[in-house]
Amino acid sequence: MNINFKAIANILGLLLLFNGVFMLFCLPFAIYYNEPYNYFLISSGITIISGLSIFLPTQKNKVKELRKKDGYMVVSLGWITMSLFGTLPYVISGEIPSFTDAFFETISGFTTTGASILNDIEALPLALLFWRSLTQWIGGMGIIVLAVAILPLLGIGGMQLFVAESPGLSPDKMKPRIQDTAKRLWVIYIGLTFTECVLLIIGGMNFFDAINHSLTTMATGGFSTKQDSVAYWDSPFIQYVIIVFMFLAGTNFTITYYGLKGKFKKAFANEEFRSYFILCVVVSLGIFGIMATNLGDINLEKAFRNSLFQVVSIITTTGFITSDYTLWGSGVLVLIFILMFIGGSAGSTAGGIKIVRHIIIFKNTVLEIKRQMHPSAILPVRINGKAINQDTTYNVLAFIMLYFSVFLVGLILMSFTNLDFSSSLGAVATSIGNIGPGLGTVGPVYNFAHINDFGKWVLSIMMLMGRLELFTVLILFSPFFWKNY
Amino acid sequence: MNINFKAIANILGLLLLFNGVFMLFCLPFAIYYNEPYNYFLISSGITIISGLSIFLPTQKNKVKELRKKDGYMVVSLGWITMSLFGTLPYVISGEIPSFTDAFFETISGFTTTGASILNDIEALPLALLFWRSLTQWIGGMGIIVLAVAILPLLGIGGMQLFVAESPGLSPDKMKPRIQDTAKRLWVIYIGLTFTECVLLIIGGMNFFDAINHSLTTMATGGFSTKQDSVAYWDSPFIQYVIIVFMFLAGTNFTITYYGLKGKFKKAFANEEFRSYFILCVVVSLGIFGIMATNLGDINLEKAFRNSLFQVVSIITTTGFITSDYTLWGSGVLVLIFILMFIGGSAGSTAGGIKIVRHIIIFKNTVLEIKRQMHPSAILPVRINGKAINQDTTYNVLAFIMLYFSVFLVGLILMSFTNLDFSSSLGAVATSIGNIGPGLGTVGPVYNFAHINDFGKWVLSIMMLMGRLELFTVLILFSPFFWKNY
Repeated sequence: MNINFKAIANILGLLLLFNGVFMLFCLPFAIYYNEPYNYFLISSGITIISGLSIFLPTQKNKVKELRKKDGYMVVSLGWITMSLFGTLPYVISGEIPSFTDAFFETISGFTTTGASILNDIEALPLALLFWRSLTQWIGGMGIIVLAVAILPLLGIGGMQLFVAESPGLSPDKMKPRIQDTAKRLWVIYIGLTFTECVLLIIGGMNFFDAINHSLTTMATGGFSTKQDSVAYWDSPFIQYVIIVFMFLAGTNFTITYYGLKGKFKKAFANEEFRSYFILCVVVSLGIFGIMATNLGDINLEKAFRNSLFQVVSIITTTGFITSDYTLWGSGVLVLIFILMFIGGSAGSTAGGIKIVRHIIIFKNTVLEIKRQMHPSAILPVRINGKAINQDTTYNVLAFIMLYFSVFLVGLILMSFTNLDFSSSLGAVATSIGNIGPGLGTVGPVYNFAHINDFGKWVLSIMMLMGRLELFTVLILFSPFFWKNY
Repeated sequence: MNINFKAIANILGLLLLFNGVFMLFCLPFAIYYNEPYNYFLISSGITIISGLSIFLPTQKNKVKELRKKDGYMVVSLGWITMSLFGTLPYVISGEIPSFTDAFFETISGFTTTGASILNDIEALPLALLFWRSLTQWIGGMGIIVLAVAILPLLGIGGMQLFVAESPGLSPDKMKPRIQDTAKRLWVIYIGLTFTECVLLIIGGMNFFDAINHSLTTMATGGFSTKQDSVAYWDSPFIQYVIIVFMFLAGTNFTITYYGLKGKFKKAFANEEFRSYFILCVVVSLGIFGIMATNLGDINLEKAFRNSLFQVVSIITTTGFITSDYTLWGSGVLVLIFILMFIGGSAGSTAGGIKIVRHIIIFKNTVLEIKRQMHPSAILPVRINGKAINQDTTYNVLAFIMLYFSVFLVGLILMSFTNLDFSSSLGAVATSIGNIGPGLGTVGPVYNFAHINDFGKWVLSIMMLMGRLELFTVLILFSPFFWKNY
């Protein structure tokens, strides 16, 4: 099986065309707010022309069915290509002159991470802020395709299991049926973004802030138009709306689909959704309990809201901030750090390890104790009442091992950047988990500007690997991949 | 299969008898140094009488063959019983009046951890310091039996694989052959302890310090008779001797056996030994390279020695100190923290995850990438050229998951003790890994005295679980264990 480079180039060209067109969506904002807009025209022009010059010559190599090896290449190269060209508006406008910084900000967008190198977010032109939010929303769309159509096909980390709508896949082909599913989920994605925007406007946000925050909420991205993030709006209504939509964005979109069709029983029958829901509630109440003993100058409702907001924001890997959680005591800090390794639901736009993987690992560990007692017994892990294949459990175990290995490699690399220990821990955990804020000097009220260029590249790679479920990227570096079988 | 409580009691009684006799070994020191010795007579008396009163009535229930379920009980209860009675000399002498503190110090001894609650080690009577060192050496003997005879039988975390001398085990019986192996390894253990003691005396240590440090080196325990640990002796000879013996203590004792018989080729053919050797060398040189750029008031040789000493001390889970590694920069700190999760070789007295498990995980992860490409290929992990059973790989994966789960639970519990984040990380990592020193306020120049009682109990349990390879302890809490099959 050789790699079909021309077919891959064809898809990458198409992606660039989309990217260039998306850049034009920023123009109306520039014009409306009387800002310069040449840089968008130039960026979009370069991107579209580059896209066409790759797309058109390879049109005759277009394939209807993507093969497995090509799938890996498309996914990694797709995200990288989008990020490279996505830097153009930042660089050409001169707002982020350093290419390293611009790349960090862009890949943080497309991977829906939300870590920023901007010292003063509000100093940027509004149209550029919109581009920044839009990169996250585009990344979120990409993730839906990835989760529904590509990862199950590639068999990454047992993900084939977790998308309810993809049974009966033939291993080497993308079925039109999956494309239909992806489209249906995109409709939900767009619909929820629109609904949140309307609710935020009702809550008193202006149109610009509302649309930006809706785009980045649904992508579980977390870029804000304000330096203070969501803490800027001290409105319970606005913050509760964002909590609800972060929660929805971190829910498996097929579950949301059942929910929207009124099949709540079916949604709650899903083990991952139940665990996700219970986890958010229990941890929030726990942290609220700790905060309630030392309220300071806030009232009970606000303590509850802050704790719920931050727990949902971290679990869903969104990364919005309403309060600096690093000041909530070391007990809470440890909990927040651990939450960074949970991740949202599979089949959502959330990053991280994902809850269903934790369920499998937990059940398998309990069963392993039972297996010690009865070595000959066959005890498969069951999810939603169904026994899952041992290969899948194996795959999930290997995924989590790999996650921690990559985390440790990142930690070692970051430790040579003069970041202190806690900040390094936080920076790597938040990057690989696609969350946004970390601990220490990369905590919720700080940013990533002070990290040196080497560190920014390390974290950029961490964001990409985390977003693409590790194997997808690493497999490209394995000799097996490049052998012709 | 019911649990044979009387047979278990019989073994525990025998252990207490040994424990009481070992206490009497401290008497000559008390007499020679003109110290009070009544408390040793009383402690030993209580322990021996308790032992006899359990041992004698159950003699008729003595079993020749230990069954699996009984094995789990004996191991956990054995360590706990030894630790409970081991506190007597500390408590009765009044030197450690708090039972919690005394238990922490004793279980830190029997688990060969080496974490201490003593603010002034040198204020203790010498005979009591000898008891403290002796607990580690006894613990080390226990570990050899555990690794060679009991864990392979119980099939914990794939350990049945790693002891070269135990093929052909019938699953539910302890073979005399294994007991022979254990005895042979004890001879090596005692011989190496004696040799180290002689070398340390040649290097200029007095007899008392030499014997204590030999006992705690070979156990990979790390208790010292000096507040400054091994840094007290600024002698290259003494420190290099201790480095060599720490390395030997962290080597699989069957490999050492080959080495002593001159079969070096066979020793180096062992993958775990090779990795262990290379890891110690490479990490030491790496840290030396970092330290060489900023020597301060030490010379190159001393920088090399400090780095080699600390790397070997942490990897082998000994925990002796020649220099405060928390001051070597955040890059080194991260490396040291990660080393805490490596552990020595299987079949040695070292604690932690163990190198062979890391090898299996690493190979399995690489193979998993290959399996992604070729889902139908059967690709087993190979160690020393032999394919290992998939169940074993599974077992190792589950072990490491469990290790990190227990680590996280410990971290959450410790975060509610007012230890700061880094110190909590260090305290839990060093306890579960049976190392000794941690980070921050439990770093190499500090101790564990300032942690509250709750925290001390949490860490005591962590030490026990780490030492007994987790499953052995946790299985007692599973409902499966208590069912009668």
